[in-house]
Amino acid sequence: MLIIGERINSTRKAVGEAVKARDTGFIRQEAIAQAEAGAHFLDCNGAVVGVEAEPGALVWLVQTCQEATGVPCAIDTPNAQAMEAALKAHQGQAFINSITAEKAKFDRILPLARDYKAKVVALCLDDSGIPQTLEARIRNADFLVKGLTAGGVAADDIYLDPLVFPVSTSGEAGLHVLETIRHIHAAYPGVHTVCGLSNISYGLPARKLLNRAFLVLCIGAGLDGVIADPLDQPLMALVRAGEVLLARDEFCAEYIAAARQGKLE
Amino acid sequence: MLIIGERINSTRKAVGEAVKARDTGFIRQEAIAQAEAGAHFLDCNGAVVGVEAEPGALVWLVQTCQEATGVPCAIDTPNAQAMEAALKAHQGQAFINSITAEKAKFDRILPLARDYKAKVVALCLDDSGIPQTLEARIRNADFLVKGLTAGGVAADDIYLDPLVFPVSTSGEAGLHVLETIRHIHAAYPGVHTVCGLSNISYGLPARKLLNRAFLVLCIGAGLDGVIADPLDQPLMALVRAGEVLLARDEFCAEYIAAARQGKLE
Repeated sequence: MLIIGERINSTRKAVGEAVKARDTGFIRQEAIAQAEAGAHFLDCNGAVVGVEAEPGALVWLVQTCQEATGVPCAIDTPNAQAMEAALKAHQGQAFINSITAEKAKFDRILPLARDYKAKVVALCLDDSGIPQTLEARIRNADFLVKGLTAGGVAADDIYLDPLVFPVSTSGEAGLHVLETIRHIHAAYPGVHTVCGLSNISYGLPARKLLNRAFLVLCIGAGLDGVIADPLDQPLMALVRAGEVLLARDEFCAEYIAAARQGKLE
Repeated sequence: MLIIGERINSTRKAVGEAVKARDTGFIRQEAIAQAEAGAHFLDCNGAVVGVEAEPGALVWLVQTCQEATGVPCAIDTPNAQAMEAALKAHQGQAFINSITAEKAKFDRILPLARDYKAKVVALCLDDSGIPQTLEARIRNADFLVKGLTAGGVAADDIYLDPLVFPVSTSGEAGLHVLETIRHIHAAYPGVHTVCGLSNISYGLPARKLLNRAFLVLCIGAGLDGVIADPLDQPLMALVRAGEVLLARDEFCAEYIAAARQGKLE
């Protein structure tokens, strides 16, 4: 299970202030904590500084995170100029977060994915807006897989995000995500899926409980990446349990090691 | 999700002693606590007293539980004589726990299920012993559905148990259960599935974590019944979250009510 640590997001107040102040110590700490908790990539979002200053903020974030941990980053911006600046500064294979099936955005981001051989989070979203039906999501997924592979992105570098909406406003929101994940894995072996969790529980009590149960359901449907807070230990413990139960943890070795480190409590 | 409360099992030391001593107060307390926590059926096992005394013990258990709660029972014995005595004493529709595809057992229990119009837990097990492969489980499931419905048991009263074995001894144990559940729901719409959880985690650390994650995976595969301890609040909270996420809790009404009652913590 690929974990993209979501904490270094400038829409979080403390992170936003650290980005504005170029507080290297704070960002290093967030990066190190997530890497130690099991993040494979560190999401970097510097949007708080505005479009003009974003390239500089992202380059600083990427360099600070990589110097602190050596872990690669997921560069989180809709701004192609900021994306390219950060990709240039990045060591090793980065994640682009994100591309969509919106025509202008697709055409702007695809060349970056190809030229920098990046992995991509590809949101199942097109110019008609938020997909209201299962069919619309699947149509967007199909477009993205075909367009990205035709454009030179390896299937193994594509992580489709089915888009998660609140189950409080549409009762079928969870089912649609699970169906989309199943469709993608059946139709495109080798292509991956990824999603964020917290939208699912918006407007309901005990949100972390819903997020955790939803992650386990998604893993059961085939999800192989998640954008989440790796410091949420109960969530990470469920991920480790899921790997065991789906025969992805040989001899339960990682599970047993995590138990010894006190990470399953 | 149908919950069969597993606590009144005489292989538990305190329950065994209560059964031998006919400690009505203790059994009432166990029955009431499980019913209040959401059990739809109360499993009653009195095997500790031995074959001769088992009919009397089971009749006493069933009557004690039903007087305390009004909730129906799952009569848990391989002993046909004890099963029939308890079914006679039971008010309303009971659960038979269990029938199997073993020839002699099947022939002994089927008439009881039919005559007492009971629900049945049907274990995917035949005379060749523990099914080692997915195919063997599915063969047993097919035999049980066909045999039970031909014998006069309604599809809606059949709960197939795919049999859960430790993932520590066979890495695919979890996957086999999930595949069997999917097969049953696809092949026999209207037939239900049920399972116990604790075998899955035998021999591993943090067993409750594995049991909980496994339950969520099973629910995602279509499981609609579980034999479990309803006093395990984190487990029951995950069941409630699962119902919301799979669109089985209209307007999230039960989830929100459970949150108000402090049951999701």
